[in-house]
Amino acid sequence: MAFDPASLKFDAAGLIPAIAQDTGGAVLMMAWMNADAVARTLETGRVTYWSRSRQAFWVKGESSGHVQRLIEMRVDCDRDCLLLVVEQEGPACHTNRRSCFYTAIREGEEVEIMAPVAG
Amino acid sequence: MAFDPASLKFDAAGLIPAIAQDTGGAVLMMAWMNADAVARTLETGRVTYWSRSRQAFWVKGESSGHVQRLIEMRVDCDRDCLLLVVEQEGPACHTNRRSCFYTAIREGEEVEIMAPVAG
Repeated sequence: MAFDPASLKFDAAGLIPAIAQDTGGAVLMMAWMNADAVARTLETGRVTYWSRSRQAFWVKGESSGHVQRLIEMRVDCDRDCLLLVVEQEGPACHTNRRSCFYTAIREGEEVEIMAPVAG
Repeated sequence: MAFDPASLKFDAAGLIPAIAQDTGGAVLMMAWMNADAVARTLETGRVTYWSRSRQAFWVKGESSGHVQRLIEMRVDCDRDCLLLVVEQEGPACHTNRRSCFYTAIREGEEVEIMAPVAG
């Protein structure tokens, strides 16, 4: 069946959550896409989110160089969440860490489990 | 720093997206939690979501037996998304597949990449 981005279930703001996972299995980040961002990501192979704060397309890495090349897009059973398997150039997080999920909860305490990439 | 679920950033409905990943690295599903579900999950070690359709706590696997044991909860840099590292009993998806993300988009077509678990 041909994939149509309009067939996804978007929220009231027209957005769907997209989880980026690198080819090694690490979950890097979660951000949002609208139907056009989904289509652009598939067309260009460059992961393109919708920035809710800027209300604009956000081509990941466009300014930082930390691009995400799409290896595969997957849709969940409810069609209301996307999984993006990506090749991540450099850190995915704006804090310069590989992943945005660098804070673990251990025995009730917040513990930093990942340091920023040097340089 | 002690972790307080109330310190997370919830959406207008009081919810935060939570991604479940098994210890082998597979992303299993994405669902939602409110502050109480976060606290219950940490207290019990049994992943507990908030069902938006039923407007009730959803102890994953309570009826199916396909429970998720929490290994570690992680918070992202913006504190508006959770990553749950879990031990998944059986399939995570209600379609009896290991993961909800069993549909890939390949060359514009939807392709099923994962079969339901037998039995």
